[in-house]
Amino acid sequence: MPDQKVLSLAEVAGLLGLSLHGDGQRQVRGIGALDSAQADQLSFLANAKYRRLLAETQAGAVIVHPDLLAEAQAADDDRVILVSDNPYLAYAKASALFEPLEKPRAGVHPSAVVESDQVHPSASIGANCVIEAGAEIGEGTVIAPGTVIGRGSQIGKYSYLHANVTVYHGVSIGDECIIHSGVVIGGDGFGFAPSKDGWVKIHQLGGVRIGNRVEVGANSCIDRGALNDTVIGDGVIMDDFTMIAHNVEVGEGTAMAACNQVAGSAKIGKHCTLAGNVGVVGHIQIADGVHLTARSLVTKSIDQVGTYSSGGSPLMETARWRKNSARFGKLDELYRQVQALEKQLKKLHEDKS
Amino acid sequence: MPDQKVLSLAEVAGLLGLSLHGDGQRQVRGIGALDSAQADQLSFLANAKYRRLLAETQAGAVIVHPDLLAEAQAADDDRVILVSDNPYLAYAKASALFEPLEKPRAGVHPSAVVESDQVHPSASIGANCVIEAGAEIGEGTVIAPGTVIGRGSQIGKYSYLHANVTVYHGVSIGDECIIHSGVVIGGDGFGFAPSKDGWVKIHQLGGVRIGNRVEVGANSCIDRGALNDTVIGDGVIMDDFTMIAHNVEVGEGTAMAACNQVAGSAKIGKHCTLAGNVGVVGHIQIADGVHLTARSLVTKSIDQVGTYSSGGSPLMETARWRKNSARFGKLDELYRQVQALEKQLKKLHEDKS
Amino acid sequence: MPDQKVLSLAEVAGLLGLSLHGDGQRQVRGIGALDSAQADQLSFLANAKYRRLLAETQAGAVIVHPDLLAEAQAADDDRVILVSDNPYLAYAKASALFEPLEKPRAGVHPSAVVESDQVHPSASIGANCVIEAGAEIGEGTVIAPGTVIGRGSQIGKYSYLHANVTVYHGVSIGDECIIHSGVVIGGDGFGFAPSKDGWVKIHQLGGVRIGNRVEVGANSCIDRGALNDTVIGDGVIMDDFTMIAHNVEVGEGTAMAACNQVAGSAKIGKHCTLAGNVGVVGHIQIADGVHLTARSLVTKSIDQVGTYSSGGSPLMETARWRKNSARFGKLDELYRQVQALEKQLKKLHEDKS
Repeated sequence: MPDQKVLSLAEVAGLLGLSLHGDGQRQVRGIGALDSAQADQLSFLANAKYRRLLAETQAGAVIVHPDLLAEAQAADDDRVILVSDNPYLAYAKASALFEPLEKPRAGVHPSAVVESDQVHPSASIGANCVIEAGAEIGEGTVIAPGTVIGRGSQIGKYSYLHANVTVYHGVSIGDECIIHSGVVIGGDGFGFAPSKDGWVKIHQLGGVRIGNRVEVGANSCIDRGALNDTVIGDGVIMDDFTMIAHNVEVGEGTAMAACNQVAGSAKIGKHCTLAGNVGVVGHIQIADGVHLTARSLVTKSIDQVGTYSSGGSPLMETARWRKNSARFGKLDELYRQVQALEKQLKKLHEDKS
Repeated sequence: MPDQKVLSLAEVAGLLGLSLHGDGQRQVRGIGALDSAQADQLSFLANAKYRRLLAETQAGAVIVHPDLLAEAQAADDDRVILVSDNPYLAYAKASALFEPLEKPRAGVHPSAVVESDQVHPSASIGANCVIEAGAEIGEGTVIAPGTVIGRGSQIGKYSYLHANVTVYHGVSIGDECIIHSGVVIGGDGFGFAPSKDGWVKIHQLGGVRIGNRVEVGANSCIDRGALNDTVIGDGVIMDDFTMIAHNVEVGEGTAMAACNQVAGSAKIGKHCTLAGNVGVVGHIQIADGVHLTARSLVTKSIDQVGTYSSGGSPLMETARWRKNSARFGKLDELYRQVQALEKQLKKLHEDKS
Repeated sequence: MPDQKVLSLAEVAGLLGLSLHGDGQRQVRGIGALDSAQADQLSFLANAKYRRLLAETQAGAVIVHPDLLAEAQAADDDRVILVSDNPYLAYAKASALFEPLEKPRAGVHPSAVVESDQVHPSASIGANCVIEAGAEIGEGTVIAPGTVIGRGSQIGKYSYLHANVTVYHGVSIGDECIIHSGVVIGGDGFGFAPSKDGWVKIHQLGGVRIGNRVEVGANSCIDRGALNDTVIGDGVIMDDFTMIAHNVEVGEGTAMAACNQVAGSAKIGKHCTLAGNVGVVGHIQIADGVHLTARSLVTKSIDQVGTYSSGGSPLMETARWRKNSARFGKLDELYRQVQALEKQLKKLHEDKS
């Protein structure tokens, strides 16, 4: 593990713009959850429902909401309290201060193969990377070992492509993006025309355009467009194993948990949140701000903001599930039976009166 | 982006065998959809229901069915019309003419590690590739940067393995195949015997055999067989994230959309079409020509051609879905209740008469 | 294909501790299933219900349970019989004897970039690998071509990391592990705090700890923890495309088939078995010994051993499925209708009596 960072709480408070209550000279060397933090760690209380942990935690310092300052101080008068209107956001910002991963040195590793003259001198090109002709690597950007950047593709400023990423030709990636290992950007979309001699490949002539501050999780795929580009907006975050097919558009600020699967030409709005393993069929549109629950399959456009789901049953014992699942195939019949029963009963009542 | 290709429409018509109506000297530098094509682009009308776009498009040339020639000409007498009985197929063939990606030069990049003497001189071995001992690379085949070919594996003629592909030992890949980045071919199938000391690995002694003209999407996995080989037939096309377990057989011409998951020893017929994220359990067989809809799970063999599905509900608001999903666990009970109600009502009617 | 191993049956019996009946000098050069094995191959009968194959097989030798020795000998008196109380386990052990893949030579390939002085001299570092500063590679461990080991990470003894694996910093992997190609270990967990300026990254300060004798299938992802580590116990086996999010814990001996998706901070017990494409939501716990069927989604903790499922319908013709699926949205309404019908009928009966 690289060296841990050590900071005084006065430094932390200053860098994060938080008010400090207690000994600012005290040092912390990392962040811990309230229930496991050590005396030399900073912690945070993001949700008031866990306030009882203030009395139990060993953390040397805690970030709390102003409403809980007195309670936090009362729990342990030796503890340092940092106050934030949004402790969870303050934690996120604090996490950057303790990131142990040092940015690699600027320059091109001697084992890298760089065929382009468009690599900024402040960029870092790692061991065994390949930067093909005409590719542009911006100021301060890191290309980690084994990553391949295709002909003429453009990577902006202060982005970080981790090891063993593959970027094809005709791709642009913006500033301050993070692309995790194993990601493939610009592979061919799945386009074929049937013919009597089998499938005829439709060459994918579009590219991929990724905005600024986008994060793409490990082993994800973002395919190039058939004619136009596949487009990922600014500030989009995607977890591992995200599948973005050709000509998809994802609006800015949308968050996609792991294993999402978006088929060709679908358009997802801005500031949507997709839970894990959501599927979206091709050529549909999803409005801004939509939330989709885990494993939903979106088969039609959604034009109203809201929370949507699809899927089957909750978890149950397998024997019970099998019995119920088998009845699924009778559901339409059952529905019709019940309607018929209602009519008959109504008739009986009428006959009686 | 690599340079765009520029072709005269006479060249396009000649290369594709289409009849030309209009100025053959006119040049086009790409293909666009009817609704976004520019005056220097070729377009196509694949589906007559979009014929109104003929009047609106800015495309300099359009491929149409003979039935629509007059209409296309009437819409804009300056436009060049190419006529094809199958405009979509003609578009697919045209897309190859405008592919900007140049084939890399023949020869071995000095940074590549080639331990085999079976690399054809017309093949191209990219930067930082590794070709292990005894591996054969055929005429005109491209192995892009960072790709590793295991001991003794065979790659045919005019195939293209993109960057950062991994091919284990004991794999054969045919002619004119395209393997996208991140694909792993020949990893171990998942085979273990339980024992009192934990799982004992079953070494996977089979290999993988892939036919000709197969395309495999990015980050897919095709595992090696336990005893016999895993087999992918000629002309199979697979999208990204395809999972092919050990000893699976996929028949020729079958098309698999993204995220398909085929478990061990399943046999999929010829010319099947699997939509996205279909699952197939192990040791079953699927007949030729079967179509499976998105997210279906195939748990039994299918011996009749047809279209099959499984799954849960359509998409709906989450609150409504939760309520309905909770009733799934009562489905068998509900079914029995309805049958009982029917009997009682029948009895009531009988009593009355 | 690397050379096949040739062994006499006396050697096989000796190495596996089996009793031998027949000519121990006979040689075999591989293993085959009963229905396809050749005369120079060893086979096995793991399940007595296939005993009729003893009469049909061409195998030169068969491993059988003691109860079937006489029957196996009677079927072909020229055949060699090896006897084991657990023929399937004996087959697993025999498979190791016929593994054609030779362990690479110890030492560092000249094209590898090794910045660490903690590589054991008996380890093998393949072509174009990158071993960053401070990383430790244990005795007899193989790092295959193109694999990248991050700063300070530790790999134990006699482990095998296949080609193009990526291990980030702050990861430890135990002894005798097998990590397949394309796997990414230690990528960032998916943690972001919302803010008025968009998502703020939560740096993932934890690592990943993987025990001994763990196997991870191709293109899997195991993310690093947010604060504490993600933990994979001893003897865990995972198939391809496994997704392990941050701070997940998987108990020892648990087996996960392909495409499992485990969300953040979930805890899976020991000796569980998860079929293909099971999903587990975040922050829940699954007891030891639980079995989950294919494509189940676990949305609540499971505290009792047992077999659990969720999901939709069995496979059926699409037209029928669509009709039934549409009724899913009426399920709650239908349930209420049936309860009302029951009441009315009860009332009718009471009125009558």
